[in-house]
Amino acid sequence: MPEVTSEASSFPPVDGEAHHRLMDELSALGGGSDGSMNRQALSAADGAARDWLAAWMKTRGLRLQVDPIGNMFGFLEWAGPDAPWIMTGSHIDSQPNGGRFDGAYGVVAACSAIEAIQREVAQSGIAPRANFIVVNWTNEEGARFQPSLLGSGVNSGEHTLQFALARKDGDGVSVGDALQAIGYAGTAERVVPDALIELHIEGADHLEKAGKRFAAFDRFWGATKYRLAFLGRQAHTAPTPMAERKDALLAAAYLIAELRAIADEGGIGLHTSVGRLEVSPNSPNIVPAEAVLFIELRTADPVVLAAAEEKLKARIATSAERAGVGYEVRSIDRRRAGAFDSRLYALAEETAAALGHETVRLTSVGGHDSISMAAVTPALVIGVPSVNGVIHHPDEFTTPEDRLLGVEILAGMLWRFCRDGNLLEA
Amino acid sequence: MPEVTSEASSFPPVDGEAHHRLMDELSALGGGSDGSMNRQALSAADGAARDWLAAWMKTRGLRLQVDPIGNMFGFLEWAGPDAPWIMTGSHIDSQPNGGRFDGAYGVVAACSAIEAIQREVAQSGIAPRANFIVVNWTNEEGARFQPSLLGSGVNSGEHTLQFALARKDGDGVSVGDALQAIGYAGTAERVVPDALIELHIEGADHLEKAGKRFAAFDRFWGATKYRLAFLGRQAHTAPTPMAERKDALLAAAYLIAELRAIADEGGIGLHTSVGRLEVSPNSPNIVPAEAVLFIELRTADPVVLAAAEEKLKARIATSAERAGVGYEVRSIDRRRAGAFDSRLYALAEETAAALGHETVRLTSVGGHDSISMAAVTPALVIGVPSVNGVIHHPDEFTTPEDRLLGVEILAGMLWRFCRDGNLLEA
Repeated sequence: MPEVTSEASSFPPVDGEAHHRLMDELSALGGGSDGSMNRQALSAADGAARDWLAAWMKTRGLRLQVDPIGNMFGFLEWAGPDAPWIMTGSHIDSQPNGGRFDGAYGVVAACSAIEAIQREVAQSGIAPRANFIVVNWTNEEGARFQPSLLGSGVNSGEHTLQFALARKDGDGVSVGDALQAIGYAGTAERVVPDALIELHIEGADHLEKAGKRFAAFDRFWGATKYRLAFLGRQAHTAPTPMAERKDALLAAAYLIAELRAIADEGGIGLHTSVGRLEVSPNSPNIVPAEAVLFIELRTADPVVLAAAEEKLKARIATSAERAGVGYEVRSIDRRRAGAFDSRLYALAEETAAALGHETVRLTSVGGHDSISMAAVTPALVIGVPSVNGVIHHPDEFTTPEDRLLGVEILAGMLWRFCRDGNLLEA
Repeated sequence: MPEVTSEASSFPPVDGEAHHRLMDELSALGGGSDGSMNRQALSAADGAARDWLAAWMKTRGLRLQVDPIGNMFGFLEWAGPDAPWIMTGSHIDSQPNGGRFDGAYGVVAACSAIEAIQREVAQSGIAPRANFIVVNWTNEEGARFQPSLLGSGVNSGEHTLQFALARKDGDGVSVGDALQAIGYAGTAERVVPDALIELHIEGADHLEKAGKRFAAFDRFWGATKYRLAFLGRQAHTAPTPMAERKDALLAAAYLIAELRAIADEGGIGLHTSVGRLEVSPNSPNIVPAEAVLFIELRTADPVVLAAAEEKLKARIATSAERAGVGYEVRSIDRRRAGAFDSRLYALAEETAAALGHETVRLTSVGGHDSISMAAVTPALVIGVPSVNGVIHHPDEFTTPEDRLLGVEILAGMLWRFCRDGNLLEA
């Protein structure tokens, strides 16, 4: 009997129907009929989704703690105080007009995996040797509030709480006020688990192109983000002679073109972008007085990143000079390049192989909360395919079969800790 | 006695204190302590300013009519049905974060000039030979709703009422709904006067540089305005390879730089601009899916204007191609170049000269409601200096002395009609 139990329990069965139902429930909170998702951080929809998650935690017997930046931690403490704490989850905030799966899938997958493990423990009667935490991080996206990875960045110690609470959205609402408004300004201490596994949609089409269904990320790109203001002079577009104009938007245009050139000079390993541009007063017949650019430089190579930043600084100056305007750098955010935990990577590979799937080795170009947390704990991001590689768009989609596979591998990895204790100890 | 009266009545005295008080009253409605004005068309502040003007009309015995596009006409009918109708006024809407005098000064000056004429008629006992209309045109600025000159454009027959009422602001609110909201959707017929004189701040520094205090405009520039959308593909800025991006903002940047080049190629007689740019979804880490540009080409020469538009069309196509995106022209507004009435110009010159002031001959580069109306009636714009040539900015300023001089010349011109009837008849 023990042998059979041990054999069966290598992969606690996942209830696919229940998983898809949870996903549908969460998708309804902020989701549109076209597949779009509008659940920006700390919005009313985010508040509703948080309430939904809190209710799930309560039902499954997890103890909810909310910290001052709004991170939600659901504790399943059943293995005693000396057992390792294994964390899984992601974020339920979305981009404006984004997709349903980015982040939310990782949270729902964590719930489904925990449910599978609870059932397996109940059925097998084994004594669990690991405690678990389901996490929902605040403002991963960085759409409404910058920087991104804000909640995990506070928890990892990268940002101070004071800094994070003072961040403001485009309407001047602070993170602190927005947390109060939806009732998620908590008091819990920071939580550093013994391991962290985050399941996410791939957000690119490497898996699809390779014809594979599972990936683990071994490294992550670094990013340098500038918020830059060009400062011109407001004037009427009609009478003001061209030679006398100080057009902030013209400087922005020069720099946006230069940023693309910097990427082209840098090769495929360097991504550059301006995703957000705020023009003021932004009236059809007024020469723009101010243009604020949200600039990103991303690459896996710290040397390339530093060189790109030097180019950026030089071209900010030349763009301003060409347009005859001034400028000021309003903020700089840096995220270092680095590596995920190789032991967790090996566990993912082994678990996937036991289920008959090859693990595609990928590098994370985008940010993930587990990248913030990788500075303080062993962490890993694993992924399932995105159809056509689409992410941050209503068309973002991962098939139900692939979603279920992700949950099965995640549950399998967590189960190893549950059965065997802290695998990462030497 | 009659001779003395006739002599005195060449220049009805203007009550400077009352004029400045009226200006201060109107400036309080939407004005900030820094000299800024936020009284965008059909806003609550515009509604309050309209109520203020309506109250002034009632006090001075003018009969108010409001037409379906919200133009306000105050009729002073005291010379009988066969006497000419002479219109004066401007607009009280402003740019966002604009100045106090653009438009509003012309309306207040009209009020003050009419008061002066009413006093002069009462004191001299002459029978007036002209009727007067004080006008406030709807949405001259074109900041909240495009196109500009909307109310005068409907009155002149350039736009249909249906077209004008359907224009929407950035939040999707239509002109029709905004008029209802502030109670200025009227029913009056269109009004075509026998002459129209509009006093305005210069909005440039030609007068200041020439050391003169009064200008009349003999001609006006034409303008071609495009609302253009570049259409890219929304994607995550992190993982999406540069080669696969379809960045609408990048195309916009290329075109904004090209537009500046078109102006440089065209010489000082051609102005180009992009004053407003709407990026969506405008999130720091999303490749922009759409960028809507509000483009202007302005020049006095129809041939130059047509050539610039051909260049614009070609460079829209090349900018889209370089960035790998599509585009669509959402609207085109054209305003013809032309001339103001030379007889009214001569009257302005003569009136100013009698007051000891030389008239500087200027060309109107910007739009004015009197340009719309010049298509259907003899019209003229006259101007007083702007300090440092500033307009559409909180620093916009005209000295009290120059403001009073403008009212005196306006009153003098109107008085000629009042005393002598229709001067423009052969």
